[in-house]
Amino acid sequence: MSQHVPLGFVFAGVAAGIKKNSAADLALIVSDRPCAAAAVFTQNKFPAAPVLYDRALVAANSGGLRGAVINAGCANACTGDGGLADAAQMATEAETALGLPPRSCAVMSTGVIGVRLPMDKIAAGARLAASRLAVAGWEAAAHAIMTTDTRPKVAFREAAGARLFGMCKGAGMIHPNMATMLAAIVTDAAIAPAALDAVLRRAVEVSFNSISVDGDTSTNDTVLILANGAAGPADADVFAAALTDLCTDLAQQIVRDGEGASKFITVRVVGAASDADARRAAKAIANSPLVKTAFYGGDANWGRILCAVGYSGAEVDPGRTDLWIAAGTDPVSAGREYEGSSLQLVANGQPCAYADEAASAIFAGQEIAVAVSLGLGAGQATVWTCDLSHDYVSINGHYRT
Amino acid sequence: MSQHVPLGFVFAGVAAGIKKNSAADLALIVSDRPCAAAAVFTQNKFPAAPVLYDRALVAANSGGLRGAVINAGCANACTGDGGLADAAQMATEAETALGLPPRSCAVMSTGVIGVRLPMDKIAAGARLAASRLAVAGWEAAAHAIMTTDTRPKVAFREAAGARLFGMCKGAGMIHPNMATMLAAIVTDAAIAPAALDAVLRRAVEVSFNSISVDGDTSTNDTVLILANGAAGPADADVFAAALTDLCTDLAQQIVRDGEGASKFITVRVVGAASDADARRAAKAIANSPLVKTAFYGGDANWGRILCAVGYSGAEVDPGRTDLWIAAGTDPVSAGREYEGSSLQLVANGQPCAYADEAASAIFAGQEIAVAVSLGLGAGQATVWTCDLSHDYVSINGHYRT
Repeated sequence: MSQHVPLGFVFAGVAAGIKKNSAADLALIVSDRPCAAAAVFTQNKFPAAPVLYDRALVAANSGGLRGAVINAGCANACTGDGGLADAAQMATEAETALGLPPRSCAVMSTGVIGVRLPMDKIAAGARLAASRLAVAGWEAAAHAIMTTDTRPKVAFREAAGARLFGMCKGAGMIHPNMATMLAAIVTDAAIAPAALDAVLRRAVEVSFNSISVDGDTSTNDTVLILANGAAGPADADVFAAALTDLCTDLAQQIVRDGEGASKFITVRVVGAASDADARRAAKAIANSPLVKTAFYGGDANWGRILCAVGYSGAEVDPGRTDLWIAAGTDPVSAGREYEGSSLQLVANGQPCAYADEAASAIFAGQEIAVAVSLGLGAGQATVWTCDLSHDYVSINGHYRT
Repeated sequence: MSQHVPLGFVFAGVAAGIKKNSAADLALIVSDRPCAAAAVFTQNKFPAAPVLYDRALVAANSGGLRGAVINAGCANACTGDGGLADAAQMATEAETALGLPPRSCAVMSTGVIGVRLPMDKIAAGARLAASRLAVAGWEAAAHAIMTTDTRPKVAFREAAGARLFGMCKGAGMIHPNMATMLAAIVTDAAIAPAALDAVLRRAVEVSFNSISVDGDTSTNDTVLILANGAAGPADADVFAAALTDLCTDLAQQIVRDGEGASKFITVRVVGAASDADARRAAKAIANSPLVKTAFYGGDANWGRILCAVGYSGAEVDPGRTDLWIAAGTDPVSAGREYEGSSLQLVANGQPCAYADEAASAIFAGQEIAVAVSLGLGAGQATVWTCDLSHDYVSINGHYRT
């Protein structure tokens, strides 16, 4: 895949000793020239130190970043002023190791909350990583940012002569106190910071902001994009489409690797009074522990789906509500558009006379699409989620046996 | 306990054959004279037929109800116009069996969603129950409204010469499609409908509306109170305090018997900018799957607690946030008020230097109190929740093995 890596970027991933199990835990991303930068950060009111650091850095230097240093194993969250100094020092260690100017590297951390970074290991790790930078280093870098992820998550796209590469680590707050979703995306398209920010925000809204593992929003969630312009200007619409597609791919990889996940669920709500209402209803379905356990158990408990819609805050007229399910991942394969391949469970708020075995066969599958039509307007939204399994409880219960 | 039953009320609980396992599933509550009535209903936008029926009934006849008929095994929810006719017919069957005037009986249902009531069984069950009415019938009635509850839930209180009795069934949406929390309360106090409505709403807010098993709000949730005045007027404040205490007792019984629950958690938030903010923060903690699995596992994952506060929507200043834990159920035993018996984990948003074994010992217990101080104002709230266990997943996953 390395031939698809955006021009001018190199990567490394090394074991710095931050994780207890000596797995890779420190990644570098470096551009050979200054990058436009944009980022979307967690809305959590306890933002981690690297979030505070990067927010200020990107605001002040959105046209001149050279790279990012990322660690797993320690989130540097709830660490106060000392933690903020550590985040700044971590950037400095990377910049020094790379021979880059001050305040040219972003910082991301994921791992245990409430513990300070081991700065000696960070410094040594940054030096080691700087000595191993390579175009092919993207794979090692993707491994180094994993926490309870069971596999690295990467995606490549091409867009009108430009290349995009993204890597991320998983959602689902994590054993024992992990802090969650990180994504780093690089491209060789030439795009101004303000435009980059706008397309990133739109792409994140329909991708990373449209997934749910357990509904918790972590202290560290960050999506960073660096555009170094090495491939020259790209058509804005084509670039935006490619970025959205790449983000959606990464977001779906996170859901598929959600903690304990055994099923991938696509939830589509149409006919809502507004897109915002559709999103509320879809998220309520995707976050409901009852819906998620029903998916896990493979039982066609559609009452729970309507119940979640009913408390979502979305405008609802029970007598106009329809519900379909289908096997697979196509958000419109369940629903009026493709009635042939889907099974309608509810029409106008009342149960249809469907065959229970047909519903159970769909719910028993590993990929399930759910479509709800509220019959009120043109609002629509699609979100992705996974089931809630025994393994989720085991992973997050942290047995001390 | 029957000597504590409010004067003039009799009860029955029988097996009408609505549940498949021939357990008791139909209850009657009857007063020997007309009652003032008040009720609080689910906010879910798919309200079940009995909710729609009772809402209209109580609004039209809040001074003249004579009783209630309640069934388990079928929620009569998502059943459309036919279901609404069934609810009215169920009331008529009870009124006929009891020789009461039309529109004098409330109706409550809990059980599977999307299935019509078996009206022949309801009618026969109402006649059987009418033949077994007795003061001591409260216990059979409390059994008859159970679904996945592992035990009946009742409470008695006395207030300035008046008596109160309440029974309820559990929260936690239920296997396979159950619809949830019902409570019926009777008193022999004389109290006008408007006053009864006001005290009931206040009592429900700090009791049934302050518990969380899984955060889902069902289609059938109803709290009904009937006051027949047989004991004459009661002091309003004394009555209100007794009703609140009774509701809190019942609500806590629901949490303790939550699906798969192994621990009882009291969450108190103080120092919030408003009571509403305190409630938001406390509910976010109580609803978080991550927090609840950490309680289950007995691990002192306090980062998850702050994280939930951070996304709750409550106003937060990380540098002013404190967190304590304590063993037991006293909501103020954890917190600044009783520092001697509690363990402070976070001060001013940063981890304290506490002994990990001390925290683990508290988290390992069956009753845990959590206190968060936001340091911003006088807002406070207390909510109760249970842990999220493997058994919750098993119960709600509905294995078809």
